[in-house]
Amino acid sequence: MKFRRSGRLVDMTNYMLHHPHALVPLTVFAEKYKSAKSSISEDLTIIKHTFEQHGIGTLLTVPGAAGGVKFIPKVSISEAKEFVEELCEQMAKPERLLPGGYLYLTDILGNPGTVNHIGRLFASVFAERKIDVVMTVATKGIPLAYAVASQLDVPVVIVRKDSKVTEGSTVSINYVSGSSKRIQTMLLAKRSLREGSNVLIIDDFMKAGGTINGMISLLEEFRANVAGIGVLVESEGVEERLVDEYISLLKLTDVDVRERQIHVKEGTYFNFYK
Amino acid sequence: MKFRRSGRLVDMTNYMLHHPHALVPLTVFAEKYKSAKSSISEDLTIIKHTFEQHGIGTLLTVPGAAGGVKFIPKVSISEAKEFVEELCEQMAKPERLLPGGYLYLTDILGNPGTVNHIGRLFASVFAERKIDVVMTVATKGIPLAYAVASQLDVPVVIVRKDSKVTEGSTVSINYVSGSSKRIQTMLLAKRSLREGSNVLIIDDFMKAGGTINGMISLLEEFRANVAGIGVLVESEGVEERLVDEYISLLKLTDVDVRERQIHVKEGTYFNFYK
Repeated sequence: MKFRRSGRLVDMTNYMLHHPHALVPLTVFAEKYKSAKSSISEDLTIIKHTFEQHGIGTLLTVPGAAGGVKFIPKVSISEAKEFVEELCEQMAKPERLLPGGYLYLTDILGNPGTVNHIGRLFASVFAERKIDVVMTVATKGIPLAYAVASQLDVPVVIVRKDSKVTEGSTVSINYVSGSSKRIQTMLLAKRSLREGSNVLIIDDFMKAGGTINGMISLLEEFRANVAGIGVLVESEGVEERLVDEYISLLKLTDVDVRERQIHVKEGTYFNFYK
Repeated sequence: MKFRRSGRLVDMTNYMLHHPHALVPLTVFAEKYKSAKSSISEDLTIIKHTFEQHGIGTLLTVPGAAGGVKFIPKVSISEAKEFVEELCEQMAKPERLLPGGYLYLTDILGNPGTVNHIGRLFASVFAERKIDVVMTVATKGIPLAYAVASQLDVPVVIVRKDSKVTEGSTVSINYVSGSSKRIQTMLLAKRSLREGSNVLIIDDFMKAGGTINGMISLLEEFRANVAGIGVLVESEGVEERLVDEYISLLKLTDVDVRERQIHVKEGTYFNFYK
């Protein structure tokens, strides 16, 4: 009997972690383990308590016949602080400096553990907003967008800068890149986004915000709504920022090419953390 | 006391699931929970048993002072069969047909749940190979590559078809696209791959295999080794396939544009499943 509970706890934990933000009826577990609903409820209490204690997230119970339990991933503030601090350190390494003052981020964005961690941070802070889909623009934002969407249980749509036949018909817009002031095009497959969708925009880097503004214009074409904007790194010191409301993990305050120094600090994330 | 074990089981399950293929010393848990190593060993036995029973994977114990425990994700054959069957059905829907006989896969690849599931299947079948990094080519293969790499605990490198200043210096090769016979270029950031790395190539679609052959040539430039090739969909009926050894989940046997029929069956995956 003791072992049955242990086995259930392990398997239910696995199940909940793989189904964030999804409403799971208790009967799913009761049938799977041939257990009474009351035992399942007790198991869920233990899981909820442990998740909260260890900064994994929480379980919400929705009562009634159509009810069940929902796992909401939630990173504790201490874990988030520690992680952002580590990222700042990594980001500030002088060997990241590329000609022109650009930064090499490929190693950070190429680490799935780091990317998934970033995903959990964004999913935490956007947990209470109504989000139907995560949108990003190819290429660098893609892994981040999937990491966030995985934790929110919503699909991803990818805006492209070139047309591909495998997308079917597309809607395109022209936009002005904020920093270079050049006119560019972005497009999205027509059937990839439903009218009225609530869209969370995720990207790796924001300078003046031109690309993100482009995505907002594209959403207008689809009559979709901006549910939020999350960027990994924002660059400070741009005269006129085009986008006002966004959540950034890191803020690049200064890149000194001659002295080979990169100054990075916490972004706006903790202003939104509840 | 009973609750302490329960809490540990839940938290350890979460930890192991988030650290696949990583060697975790038992002291990590013993210190975290202030428990005896013997209790931790018992917990791990319960987790291992449950993981195996429910087709989540297994735990390997590495004895000795430098030892610990490793979670190896492993999808059961019945789950893999069921999932591949479902994918076949989804793939065969006539509304996927685009002009020119191309298929719209954006919805399937846009679903993080599906993508993560595919990642677990590939991570299972490649679990015993020595893999240091997962490589893919922008754009469609990216989410799949991250899903696989997450489960193997290795980084991702992304080959591009256009140069970006944020990559730093790159190595580029020309290759012949197998189906269109056109000469194309692909490139990879110089510092993204170490000499001698064992590389798993992941992509969404393979027709004649030209793109994958291009990646293999690129690996030669880096003196890196091909540890394996995994593709979501291969297309059958190409006269001369350029790549011999690969694992595919699905095989597209025929696309009949006039009759609006798509024929899909299981790929080579189950020939490699152990």
